[in-house]
Amino acid sequence: MTVSDKLFSKADFPVFEKYKDLVYLDNSATQQKPRQVLERVEKYYREENANPLRGLYDLSVKATDAYENSREKVREFIGANSTKEIIFTRNASESLNLIAYSWGRENITSGDEILVAISEHHSDLLPWQLLAKEKGATLKYLDCDKFGKYTADDLKKALTSRTKIFAIAQISNVFGRVNPIKEFAKICHENGTLIVCDGAQSVPHIPVDVNDLDVDFLAFSGHKMLAPMGIGVLYGREELLEKMPPFLSGGEMIEYVTREGATYAELPHKFEAGTVNVGGAVGLAAAIDYINDIGFEAIEKRENELTELAFNEMNKVPYVNIIGSEKAEDHHGILTFTIEGVHPHDIAAIFDADNIAIRAGHHCAQPLHQHLSVQSTTRMSLAFYNDEEDIKRFIETLKTIRRRMGYDR
Amino acid sequence: MTVSDKLFSKADFPVFEKYKDLVYLDNSATQQKPRQVLERVEKYYREENANPLRGLYDLSVKATDAYENSREKVREFIGANSTKEIIFTRNASESLNLIAYSWGRENITSGDEILVAISEHHSDLLPWQLLAKEKGATLKYLDCDKFGKYTADDLKKALTSRTKIFAIAQISNVFGRVNPIKEFAKICHENGTLIVCDGAQSVPHIPVDVNDLDVDFLAFSGHKMLAPMGIGVLYGREELLEKMPPFLSGGEMIEYVTREGATYAELPHKFEAGTVNVGGAVGLAAAIDYINDIGFEAIEKRENELTELAFNEMNKVPYVNIIGSEKAEDHHGILTFTIEGVHPHDIAAIFDADNIAIRAGHHCAQPLHQHLSVQSTTRMSLAFYNDEEDIKRFIETLKTIRRRMGYDR
Repeated sequence: MTVSDKLFSKADFPVFEKYKDLVYLDNSATQQKPRQVLERVEKYYREENANPLRGLYDLSVKATDAYENSREKVREFIGANSTKEIIFTRNASESLNLIAYSWGRENITSGDEILVAISEHHSDLLPWQLLAKEKGATLKYLDCDKFGKYTADDLKKALTSRTKIFAIAQISNVFGRVNPIKEFAKICHENGTLIVCDGAQSVPHIPVDVNDLDVDFLAFSGHKMLAPMGIGVLYGREELLEKMPPFLSGGEMIEYVTREGATYAELPHKFEAGTVNVGGAVGLAAAIDYINDIGFEAIEKRENELTELAFNEMNKVPYVNIIGSEKAEDHHGILTFTIEGVHPHDIAAIFDADNIAIRAGHHCAQPLHQHLSVQSTTRMSLAFYNDEEDIKRFIETLKTIRRRMGYDR
Repeated sequence: MTVSDKLFSKADFPVFEKYKDLVYLDNSATQQKPRQVLERVEKYYREENANPLRGLYDLSVKATDAYENSREKVREFIGANSTKEIIFTRNASESLNLIAYSWGRENITSGDEILVAISEHHSDLLPWQLLAKEKGATLKYLDCDKFGKYTADDLKKALTSRTKIFAIAQISNVFGRVNPIKEFAKICHENGTLIVCDGAQSVPHIPVDVNDLDVDFLAFSGHKMLAPMGIGVLYGREELLEKMPPFLSGGEMIEYVTREGATYAELPHKFEAGTVNVGGAVGLAAAIDYINDIGFEAIEKRENELTELAFNEMNKVPYVNIIGSEKAEDHHGILTFTIEGVHPHDIAAIFDADNIAIRAGHHCAQPLHQHLSVQSTTRMSLAFYNDEEDIKRFIETLKTIRRRMGYDR
């Protein structure tokens, strides 16, 4: 068992100081927070807190700077052309709902088709399902094979002249596989179809450049990438966002209001109603700083090495079946599995007894589980702050599960 | 100048340690945070952070407890019957949008009437304006007099058999006056009209009991009551929420999803899509603890004494006109004013030069400003942590404004 020499330390993460024995392998659900992020948020509330954007006094100017500098940090992080394209939301789910409500209600009509990858998280599926029902549109699914793979040919076959939008995650939260978004975007655009990319599982783990990928929308959450809960991002192409009607309405998103109507603010404020979450935004900016300090090259190397280690050891354990690709390099820190004869909830409970945090259930991807003909699964998911010892502990417990459930082996 | 003896200290608020000379009088926009709240949020991230609700391991159970205990704290604070009636949102604006989208799209049809108080914040006006336009309904306004007063007679006259809902704040963010919500709720219900109450400016300052008021919906924000940004609350009557369709969709708000459709989770989870903001919720719970420790009796006494002090001193300053009631006791810490011959932005800038934070503009209430025939105004707004010295400094600067703008007096 060998892993990259580059120094990755849990010392920055207070939760591991508190629980020295904890093995945290539920990073796809939410990540732990380094003290640098917590301290930055606290500093905001101690030294810069005010309602931003319209205040004329020093503290409000500080809050505005903190907020807009965070937006610029996000813009740079994902390679967007303009901060007008960066909308702060609560989480990736809200970002995706915003598209379905604002773009969707304006552009989808009866008879149109919406194409959704079958492995999508409910957050990138239900908004489209509801939209299709409301508008009398057809919701179609792009199916993957049992390795979690989607092909360009299948996509081309699924697209019709009525397909207005295609929704797919860059990395599935069950398979861990990176989908060829750039290639798929090209195919979609040649068909006059927009592509929305759920980046919740990719943006924290691999470099994402919206211009290189050429996606129309990208959604992700702060809490899955070291930042506090309650902050998320929607990237949208400026020309699309410009044409979209407001979603939530209220303070800060208007230019002028009368009894009869309103003119709305410029991007990005048009989509940010009410008092914005400055504390969350500065936390996300601090998280991006932390990630940039390490660098994605080192993060990917580390996560891939740990994934390979876990993958290879898991394959040696009898009755363990890993969902998706048979190659470690396709998993990017996400290893979803079943153990023959043992219910996933029992598996997770036994891991918990050994102080190892993993997740059991449908991982908010029930249609995928139906497609794979499996009721529920267990998932371990890594972050760069995990270490060899975590994997060792995980494998040790994994080996004991069936015996602890009463099987001979 | 005398104020209650009861000890209220700024010592709990780090921002005043950092800026010893700061006079913060923009509390209606957002409040500062006591260290008890900041420490509670930090403790959550250090010791309890995980994705709650579906995790089977210890840390996720801790996060779930932290979240649901916060909900129970909110329920008790506003006297709701059940935690099913407490929906965590991002802020009051989102809470109000949720009603307009979910209840509104289901219940408002062409020809219906929506009644909105003319003093409403844009967040309790624009969602209704958009809904009315979409559905071909009529948006009607209930006008107040120049003292900010609404009468039962005017309300009765404004209600018709087509009036489905009436939206009004308990305390206007411009006038500071407490509207007779209980009386208005009775009148509405006798007419078969629902009443939605914007509690953003009342819940932080006076005891609010949803059953006593008999409102159908109540919305408020955490950040205006000592809590972090990014957390808000929607209270709704259980029987109404039960019938309402989902608003945002995604993870955690479903029971079962197939390719074709979904069954949604029970209340309150039906309305909380995606990863919830546990850090925000525990921050709000800590803020409620802080408020309860002082008690509303003491808070109201303190805020009313400071209001009276400021009100009386302001009335002695020539060319200063206070918007709304001519009685101090009607202002509840909110004193919006103009100074003849001086633009509100210049007023705020001069106050800023003296390190006093107040707000200038339309306070997200443009139709009210049009109704009062005033372009924009300046607002000072108190919290219990303000003191006599703050008021003294505010009055001292107020007296200098016109001279500093070049007038003789």
